[in-house]
Amino acid sequence: MPHFKLTLEYDGTKFCGWQIQPKSVRTVQGEIKRALDLIFKRPITLIGAGRTDSGVHALGQVAHFKVDSSIAPQTLLRALNANLPDDIAILKVQRIPSDFHAQYGAKSKIYRYTILNQQTRRTKGRGFYYQVPRKLNVRLMKKESKVLVGRHDFRAFTAANSRSEDEQKTKSTIRIIKRLSFSQAGGFLHVDIEANGFLYKMVRNIVGTLVQIGLGRISKGELIKILRSKHRKNAGPTAPAQGLCLLKVKY
Amino acid sequence: MPHFKLTLEYDGTKFCGWQIQPKSVRTVQGEIKRALDLIFKRPITLIGAGRTDSGVHALGQVAHFKVDSSIAPQTLLRALNANLPDDIAILKVQRIPSDFHAQYGAKSKIYRYTILNQQTRRTKGRGFYYQVPRKLNVRLMKKESKVLVGRHDFRAFTAANSRSEDEQKTKSTIRIIKRLSFSQAGGFLHVDIEANGFLYKMVRNIVGTLVQIGLGRISKGELIKILRSKHRKNAGPTAPAQGLCLLKVKY
Repeated sequence: MPHFKLTLEYDGTKFCGWQIQPKSVRTVQGEIKRALDLIFKRPITLIGAGRTDSGVHALGQVAHFKVDSSIAPQTLLRALNANLPDDIAILKVQRIPSDFHAQYGAKSKIYRYTILNQQTRRTKGRGFYYQVPRKLNVRLMKKESKVLVGRHDFRAFTAANSRSEDEQKTKSTIRIIKRLSFSQAGGFLHVDIEANGFLYKMVRNIVGTLVQIGLGRISKGELIKILRSKHRKNAGPTAPAQGLCLLKVKY
Repeated sequence: MPHFKLTLEYDGTKFCGWQIQPKSVRTVQGEIKRALDLIFKRPITLIGAGRTDSGVHALGQVAHFKVDSSIAPQTLLRALNANLPDDIAILKVQRIPSDFHAQYGAKSKIYRYTILNQQTRRTKGRGFYYQVPRKLNVRLMKKESKVLVGRHDFRAFTAANSRSEDEQKTKSTIRIIKRLSFSQAGGFLHVDIEANGFLYKMVRNIVGTLVQIGLGRISKGELIKILRSKHRKNAGPTAPAQGLCLLKVKY
């Protein structure tokens, strides 16, 4: 039976996250499944690389499904976009081997968190940034953030008793951050984090903590202690969902 | 009496253009005037660098006004943004000499037109591009467009009997295009045009014509004939408003 891989983007503003929910709320997975069910006239099981929370965006989410059909990928691409709302765009449809799994096969994911660090708001990128009016010490944030890179127990950066995004893979709270980098453009500050997996709200809790460092509210040298403490209460507040975007899933 | 210069951006999607209209439609000038009237408790006359049409965006529109008040620019900046809808953002407020005039003082303006040249839509930049699914010959568009640069009568690229954006300055249809450049990023193609002034719908008619060239529907060497003909009917269709953005006004 043919297997298909979808690469897609969405504006998360008006979605209650990726995952289909029992209640009739608007989700990305739900909208795509509805389009697929309609196109193939039978219920399709759609598996995403990972859940994104309510309000979180994606420029490179990946999902897969199998269906007994000889449809050409390009035809499916057009049919899907024609049957989806305009806050979802399917970028690519590919035939894949049957052993491909969007979730279990993911080697790493890259998330981008966008902060607008100025007093005045922007209409550019509206809905895609978190505004911090007070000047951040980005140099210090960069320097301090280095202790997070590598293999660590990130329990301090996930909600207590929370279910991790990939909990089915492992119950462990150990993850490997492969890269954590900063870039600035205009008044915008981007924090890109690549890891082999992410705990529930891990990026937003890390960014919320880094912002506290940038504001001078968490002292130099404290971040390593927070990490080692493995207690959520020691880290900073959770940064808002709207600044977060899933950039890429690597296989 | 103190004079103030505003630099601002807006998402034009939900506005019936810049200019206040007799009917009670939502305009950018109208919203800003309403905020100014509220802040200063008297009617303010707000003069913009130029009108933008319904659906057209701006990242660097400029306007000025005078008011008998000792308010600090930074205070006014905050007060304005606090009293404006979030599809307008005032970026800068400056005190200026009384001889500054946002419209008559403008030496040139830069507009950017954004085309998404691929079959699949994007959610990124949604509402800010015009999608052309068929592959454009950008190289040919670039080459052909060179004849437009310089001092020309652009009558062929404005609607018959239309009122030019800066008709109060001159009734002439002669303008000087100082720069016309292309840039590509992902599937997006940007056409930037800098001129000393623009006729009504001039950018959109030029871009609409360039798209026809890129699609092979207007032959090589035809553009100069269209320009010289001074007849609107010879040019291509008007490109949609949503792809257009006023980038900058130079003084």
